[in-house]
Amino acid sequence: MQARLHDQIHFILEVDKLKNVLRRTYILNEPRRENSAEHSWQLALMAMLLAEHANEAVDVTKVLKMVLVHDIVEVDAGDTFTYDEVGKLDKAEREERAADRLFGLLPEGQATEFRTLWDEFEARESPEARFANSLDRLMPLLHNAYGERSSWADHQVSKAQVMERCSPIGDGSQPLWEMARALIEGAFEDGKLG
Amino acid sequence: MQARLHDQIHFILEVDKLKNVLRRTYILNEPRRENSAEHSWQLALMAMLLAEHANEAVDVTKVLKMVLVHDIVEVDAGDTFTYDEVGKLDKAEREERAADRLFGLLPEGQATEFRTLWDEFEARESPEARFANSLDRLMPLLHNAYGERSSWADHQVSKAQVMERCSPIGDGSQPLWEMARALIEGAFEDGKLG
Repeated sequence: MQARLHDQIHFILEVDKLKNVLRRTYILNEPRRENSAEHSWQLALMAMLLAEHANEAVDVTKVLKMVLVHDIVEVDAGDTFTYDEVGKLDKAEREERAADRLFGLLPEGQATEFRTLWDEFEARESPEARFANSLDRLMPLLHNAYGERSSWADHQVSKAQVMERCSPIGDGSQPLWEMARALIEGAFEDGKLG
Repeated sequence: MQARLHDQIHFILEVDKLKNVLRRTYILNEPRRENSAEHSWQLALMAMLLAEHANEAVDVTKVLKMVLVHDIVEVDAGDTFTYDEVGKLDKAEREERAADRLFGLLPEGQATEFRTLWDEFEARESPEARFANSLDRLMPLLHNAYGERSSWADHQVSKAQVMERCSPIGDGSQPLWEMARALIEGAFEDGKLG
């Protein structure tokens, strides 16, 4: 096998581990938490369907690639719960190290492409990154609002915390933020949020 | 919420069920079978990395969308094991019904877009569909060849069956088919295949 193909296959097998990284969010129809691989698929599907609601015109291909890659660092760094104030302290450092190692497994050109996509997602400065981040913050809200089990309840999350976490949805999409805000209010009224 | 956005969100929540559809293939680092949602993420990642090995130039965006959508019918129709000769008999009929119902949940335009992507994937007639199908046949082979547990062993699959299932890999990518053939030969020599 040529060296380049070998490195690509090695990377694919290495990041198979993303299927083992559990998030706090529960899937809708079974009492289990979702993993970061299936979450990444779902964000990509959302990008296909919801791009028309982005505040600015977005390059959908770039959004797709960004969300497919955005959680790969968790293979080494694990998933850091949004409301984990201690875990957040060294999150950036852990994820930088993971990005160096994991994207470094890729052949020339693709190592840079993947790293650039991840850096752009994290920086939230381009229209695509703002929109991709909107989707990433909206989906757990949908799971918590519509699902039977809730990571909010497990971790006694407050309405103020969710509002703070979710308000950047509006930077990527005003219609999605309006929907999100209504869901947060509804969840608070139903006692799902402290 | 506007009607169009409502329908899009309803679809996303409905197809969350793809996370519950188990395939026969085991993931690499844990003794559990993978589900069709995480499998779809993995194929999309492969499409990003391996498109340079396609026999013909492919529109990567189209391949990405195709693999993200290709298993959605399993929400209703379930996963039909490749080597299940009985299940295969009514697979097409079950999946057609599923496609009608599921893609029919989408708003105008997107219902047709998703259905067209799925039909194209199934027909294997365009360069993108041939390449997407190569990835779909290659990935379980990689899991079986490199993983500790094997769906081949569980179901006493023969080398001849795997060769038949995998030979269309060459229609999409000759280098991937050469690699696949070597893996099948190696697995046979190691007693992993009957």
